[in-house]
Amino acid sequence: MVSKIDSLKGSQERKGEKIILGFSGGLDTSFCVKYLTDEQGYEVHSIIVNTGGFTEEELKDIEAHAYKLGVKSHTTIDAVKSYYDRIIKYLVFGNVLKNNTYPLSVSAERLVQALHIAEHAKAMGAKAVAHGSTGAGNDQVRFDMIFHIMIPGVEIITPIRDLKLSREEEIDYLKFKGVEMNFAKAVYSINKGLWGTSVGGKETLSSKGMLPEEAWPTHVSKTGDEEIKLHFNKGELIAINDQSFAHPAEAIQQLQAIAGAYGIGRDIHVGDTIIGIKGRVGFEAAAPMIILKSHHALEKHVLTKWQLNWKDQLALFYGNWLHEGQILDPVMRDIEAFFQNSQENVTGEVFVQLLPYRFQVIGINSAYDLMSSKFGKYGEMNTGFTGEDVRGFSKIFGNQTSIYHQVQESNK
Amino acid sequence: MVSKIDSLKGSQERKGEKIILGFSGGLDTSFCVKYLTDEQGYEVHSIIVNTGGFTEEELKDIEAHAYKLGVKSHTTIDAVKSYYDRIIKYLVFGNVLKNNTYPLSVSAERLVQALHIAEHAKAMGAKAVAHGSTGAGNDQVRFDMIFHIMIPGVEIITPIRDLKLSREEEIDYLKFKGVEMNFAKAVYSINKGLWGTSVGGKETLSSKGMLPEEAWPTHVSKTGDEEIKLHFNKGELIAINDQSFAHPAEAIQQLQAIAGAYGIGRDIHVGDTIIGIKGRVGFEAAAPMIILKSHHALEKHVLTKWQLNWKDQLALFYGNWLHEGQILDPVMRDIEAFFQNSQENVTGEVFVQLLPYRFQVIGINSAYDLMSSKFGKYGEMNTGFTGEDVRGFSKIFGNQTSIYHQVQESNK
Amino acid sequence: MVSKIDSLKGSQERKGEKIILGFSGGLDTSFCVKYLTDEQGYEVHSIIVNTGGFTEEELKDIEAHAYKLGVKSHTTIDAVKSYYDRIIKYLVFGNVLKNNTYPLSVSAERLVQALHIAEHAKAMGAKAVAHGSTGAGNDQVRFDMIFHIMIPGVEIITPIRDLKLSREEEIDYLKFKGVEMNFAKAVYSINKGLWGTSVGGKETLSSKGMLPEEAWPTHVSKTGDEEIKLHFNKGELIAINDQSFAHPAEAIQQLQAIAGAYGIGRDIHVGDTIIGIKGRVGFEAAAPMIILKSHHALEKHVLTKWQLNWKDQLALFYGNWLHEGQILDPVMRDIEAFFQNSQENVTGEVFVQLLPYRFQVIGINSAYDLMSSKFGKYGEMNTGFTGEDVRGFSKIFGNQTSIYHQVQESNK
Amino acid sequence: MVSKIDSLKGSQERKGEKIILGFSGGLDTSFCVKYLTDEQGYEVHSIIVNTGGFTEEELKDIEAHAYKLGVKSHTTIDAVKSYYDRIIKYLVFGNVLKNNTYPLSVSAERLVQALHIAEHAKAMGAKAVAHGSTGAGNDQVRFDMIFHIMIPGVEIITPIRDLKLSREEEIDYLKFKGVEMNFAKAVYSINKGLWGTSVGGKETLSSKGMLPEEAWPTHVSKTGDEEIKLHFNKGELIAINDQSFAHPAEAIQQLQAIAGAYGIGRDIHVGDTIIGIKGRVGFEAAAPMIILKSHHALEKHVLTKWQLNWKDQLALFYGNWLHEGQILDPVMRDIEAFFQNSQENVTGEVFVQLLPYRFQVIGINSAYDLMSSKFGKYGEMNTGFTGEDVRGFSKIFGNQTSIYHQVQESNK
Repeated sequence: MVSKIDSLKGSQERKGEKIILGFSGGLDTSFCVKYLTDEQGYEVHSIIVNTGGFTEEELKDIEAHAYKLGVKSHTTIDAVKSYYDRIIKYLVFGNVLKNNTYPLSVSAERLVQALHIAEHAKAMGAKAVAHGSTGAGNDQVRFDMIFHIMIPGVEIITPIRDLKLSREEEIDYLKFKGVEMNFAKAVYSINKGLWGTSVGGKETLSSKGMLPEEAWPTHVSKTGDEEIKLHFNKGELIAINDQSFAHPAEAIQQLQAIAGAYGIGRDIHVGDTIIGIKGRVGFEAAAPMIILKSHHALEKHVLTKWQLNWKDQLALFYGNWLHEGQILDPVMRDIEAFFQNSQENVTGEVFVQLLPYRFQVIGINSAYDLMSSKFGKYGEMNTGFTGEDVRGFSKIFGNQTSIYHQVQESNK
Repeated sequence: MVSKIDSLKGSQERKGEKIILGFSGGLDTSFCVKYLTDEQGYEVHSIIVNTGGFTEEELKDIEAHAYKLGVKSHTTIDAVKSYYDRIIKYLVFGNVLKNNTYPLSVSAERLVQALHIAEHAKAMGAKAVAHGSTGAGNDQVRFDMIFHIMIPGVEIITPIRDLKLSREEEIDYLKFKGVEMNFAKAVYSINKGLWGTSVGGKETLSSKGMLPEEAWPTHVSKTGDEEIKLHFNKGELIAINDQSFAHPAEAIQQLQAIAGAYGIGRDIHVGDTIIGIKGRVGFEAAAPMIILKSHHALEKHVLTKWQLNWKDQLALFYGNWLHEGQILDPVMRDIEAFFQNSQENVTGEVFVQLLPYRFQVIGINSAYDLMSSKFGKYGEMNTGFTGEDVRGFSKIFGNQTSIYHQVQESNK
Repeated sequence: MVSKIDSLKGSQERKGEKIILGFSGGLDTSFCVKYLTDEQGYEVHSIIVNTGGFTEEELKDIEAHAYKLGVKSHTTIDAVKSYYDRIIKYLVFGNVLKNNTYPLSVSAERLVQALHIAEHAKAMGAKAVAHGSTGAGNDQVRFDMIFHIMIPGVEIITPIRDLKLSREEEIDYLKFKGVEMNFAKAVYSINKGLWGTSVGGKETLSSKGMLPEEAWPTHVSKTGDEEIKLHFNKGELIAINDQSFAHPAEAIQQLQAIAGAYGIGRDIHVGDTIIGIKGRVGFEAAAPMIILKSHHALEKHVLTKWQLNWKDQLALFYGNWLHEGQILDPVMRDIEAFFQNSQENVTGEVFVQLLPYRFQVIGINSAYDLMSSKFGKYGEMNTGFTGEDVRGFSKIFGNQTSIYHQVQESNK
Repeated sequence: MVSKIDSLKGSQERKGEKIILGFSGGLDTSFCVKYLTDEQGYEVHSIIVNTGGFTEEELKDIEAHAYKLGVKSHTTIDAVKSYYDRIIKYLVFGNVLKNNTYPLSVSAERLVQALHIAEHAKAMGAKAVAHGSTGAGNDQVRFDMIFHIMIPGVEIITPIRDLKLSREEEIDYLKFKGVEMNFAKAVYSINKGLWGTSVGGKETLSSKGMLPEEAWPTHVSKTGDEEIKLHFNKGELIAINDQSFAHPAEAIQQLQAIAGAYGIGRDIHVGDTIIGIKGRVGFEAAAPMIILKSHHALEKHVLTKWQLNWKDQLALFYGNWLHEGQILDPVMRDIEAFFQNSQENVTGEVFVQLLPYRFQVIGINSAYDLMSSKFGKYGEMNTGFTGEDVRGFSKIFGNQTSIYHQVQESNK
């Protein structure tokens, strides 16, 4: 093993060059700090972008750890609100669930992290940027692409991908360098953020198997049921049970606190990775699932048929393209313009019943409700039209198909 | 009130003309038999198309009731399998849920009923056909259109829509005619078929309100949980827990028997009617929901990314267009050809856990699983490609957007 | 024939009620003025909405004719600019050609006319509105729908549709009433507006046949060829050959003057009417065709692949839905928001060669051109990426399909 | 320069290993034969796949040239019919024009070539395959991907891409090796095949400029005009002017012979390459353009509105995905199933007028024509429906939008 450490030994050829490193405090990025500093000679500036998964305490520990590893500077970005403003808002507008299942918790988060890292590199005038992704997942593509696009020409350094070290080799190296940290591997890998928590473990590595109760990050503490009221304004969640929030991100956090304890929003998703293989991931996303379903219920009352239809079509693409890291393609801005415009009337209250492991949308109340009884209740006669009108409608509505079938008959 | 009955009095001007009447045995169609016979003079031939909602017993009672009302002939069509073959099969292939919620239980059923009635009218050489729809709902459009298309020139008679009678007036008329039947109005209107049961009541007439436990047709008798195994062959459910079925319709009925008792698949849908207003309907559809989600889970493992994408886009339209009664538009055959072709590899087992009021897909097993570990596990390095390949991929994959942003910069 | 005139005789039961009548000065609407006034007793207020097809002179003649027929007031709306602002602008943004052929010349025009008539009826506080459409075409649907939507409750009166008179009967009635006007029927019916001229005649009534040279409204007077330069700003045509225009509608008129004389933009379209039958129409639209193709050429240089793709998908629907009169569905505003946003960079010059009966786009010049040689010429190596990058890209880009085929092999 | 040749010198380490080389006889692939044989030691088996661009004579010359260069075997594949059967047929069914302009002449051809080369490599049991693409274009991706998918594990050798030689260096090397061939560079690069001929030159390297008359491969020899009749059977061209053909590929060649001499089908396309940059290419494609427009005209008469709509949407994707080399994605088979099914009634004659540099579709004749006057001529009243029916239709058709606007008003 000493020979492996020897093989990593570098001549510090980058001596004095600045590099920006996306840093989480875990094994991979800790290795990167040491390796980039000691072997490559870089002046490492670490940055952590908090998308809602870290407490103040944790962020302080990570900062201390970074400095202990030897970074020149460490920056903590509170990206919770910008995460919402740049991405989550549109995922809500579009009711985006990848393959009708997954709220894109991790996919979306990586992008906002990459954007902040790129902006930091630009502001610091760095000529190099590093991320700790392996060569086997989606994240490398997301980081690479955002960097190529936002800071073209800046060199992208990826020690973990390039050196192909095993976990044990990284630990040996860090121990050799005298680094003290928790080297134990978690049984389940957890990634937490404002838009949900992903969970990976042995069950998700094959095509069958549900995660066990202990794998889920949230302890289910509530039984019974509870009805809550969500207030949307032009498509955005702004109040819960009449309590208003300064920013929708805060409303999401509050909803997560209320609903998470029911164990709502747990599922396993299998999906297409950017690199072409299928991957399976567990996730827990009480607030996202409730918001998406509530928002959609409200939209079903206030939007026209073709608004709903086109939102679905565009959202299908928007979610997939975002998942694949293409958030900076200008077509995404065009779709967002469509989404934004469609939300003009998506204002009102949605009533939701929470129960252990599930929830039900009970109904809505909106001044823009097209189901308003003023214009006729379904199944009851009304002033807007007559049965005779519908008789004419049916004849014309089916006219082309009727002609088609008569032509078919005449060719028999 | 007697004056109302007087006003219905007709001179039997259609004396001896044959008419085919879609007959359910309820108040509206019972009225139609009497009215068409006694006032219009028609020779009424009633027909009931069973899509899975009636027992043998009930069908016999309806037949007896028809003859007592005075029909010339009564025909019972067992349409359970043809319902599956003509429509449900494709709803499964397309994972069709209207507005991502409703399995189109009633919409689909009406169409197969209309198709059978039209075929019957053709076979009988009738020049007139009648249905009991009011002028306020979707069903009139579906019946009218199918008849216009399949039997153009055959007159469509709709006494309930045209006479605009109140429930009480219909009852008065039938009582005046000496008809004895149960005239009590059910608190909740129920429509049952192979692909789900709809429930309407006062809660569904406004935008808020969940149906109470007693409104749901199925009594929830199971607690605890149960794991079942569904076997799909080229997209069709052919076995449950290793028990094979001669026809998928039977598998659906068996699954409904197993899962219905958990209260699975209950929800309320608000949607766009064909006639432009919004309508809300409760439904209970354990088997449909489990089949659709299981089938989709299997597809997520065996289809490529763009197969999944295009199936979603086509299914969105297919479901809406079917809902609007346009099943005879030849574009539906084209989409079905796409669907059919896409099911070639949708073969394998899906494991589902049933619990009270909910279920979870646990995983799948398929010889066509693209997640097969032979080709690399997600997140682990594999023989198919290297991190270096992905580095090149990311550069090219983001190349156009990178150029776009450089052009933007150069114009600042 | 006198008996037919007698049968039209009415008792003036609407005595003194105001009605707004869309008026073109032709036979049908002239009949309407007389009939509505003399038989129904209405106080008729005629309105003509000029979408670019009438000269000042013609509009004055029409006004005089209206007053001679006995209207209470006559209003002339110059809708050329509002036609562009409300509709044509978006047809250009979307490169909309119905079935890839027809610029929707008449469809679009009717809608802006209906909108102005409805606004006029509202302003006048009228309780009735009339249009001269027959019961056999698209226009009746467009007028009816816009009126139902914009002025719900206002009665829609359609004498031509309802009375089902022949041309000769209308003429007899008008002669009987002492009206003097040109009663001769044109061999070809022409409808002219800012966005093209439609031509109907015996050749368009069957599935085969091209209109003869004399049927086309514009005399082809130019031979040889000519190169012109069109300047677009954010998707809108603002200058031709360095001459700027105060409003794009003026640029369109100028381009028509230049290019029309070459006989450019003539074709016959067969399409789906709103009422389900197929219809064939000739059209001449030099300026629309040149603008649409030039605008698209510019977009192909400045938009990304997926912007082009989604614009095509949305435009396909937008054009069809507009054609069917659904311009007031809010989904149209959402799509327009997408279109508008997509035009941010659609700025630059397009070079077009005009020749008799055809034109060629020669190229473009734009600061937003993504083909800029700064970022690599196609087919030549460049600094942005290497062949090695593409090798990696190809491997990953085909990875899923490769796995799919390996799975297929393993199941053989 | 000698030093460059020295640098190419290899130790023949692949001694005796078989390699399959896609061979055109041009400079790049001639270099490949020599380099792979003399420096790498491969046993080179060349293969040329004729997609319609070569004469018998040319193919013989190429074969002789290959053997003179030292290949072990040379194979000529006549792929004209398989090209049609595998690809062109579906491009016709879908009326596919990339960005509404380009018939994908080269894109489609490369794929069928790659497929044949891969099949040949498989049959020969080769462990390596080579193509002569540079690192700067689309073709490398198409060849790489098809090979990765069809013959995974077979090594892909690309000397031109990897060695990055200049044209002059390749010539020096070949001269040094004693190879005699025409080393002159054509002013315009031409690529000819059954589905059109591409032309590249200095005009296509920038965003503006039309190819001069002499650059186009076909001499325009016809003036005046000519009417031809194309007979389609289930979407396929099977006869011209009553002359039948054994295979549609022959009909295409015959049509090209007739129409090419008019200079029809010339244009310049700018499009998105697979590798993200924009590229411009001239093309001449008389037969493809006439077939696509004629086929579409016929479809507009025999297909329903939504068949036309979905064909357009699917074709947009199908063309793009094919262009990007993804022909082996199974979603392409699913779309082809849709296309095939949609062609059931696309049978009939299309009449086309040919003129110098342009053509016009004059009309069609088909037993499946939905415009058949039996079901009502557009603009004339008919037996299928009444104006009263349309009045009812309009009310219902605009009902939801009417409600929407009333709700808007009520919120003002």
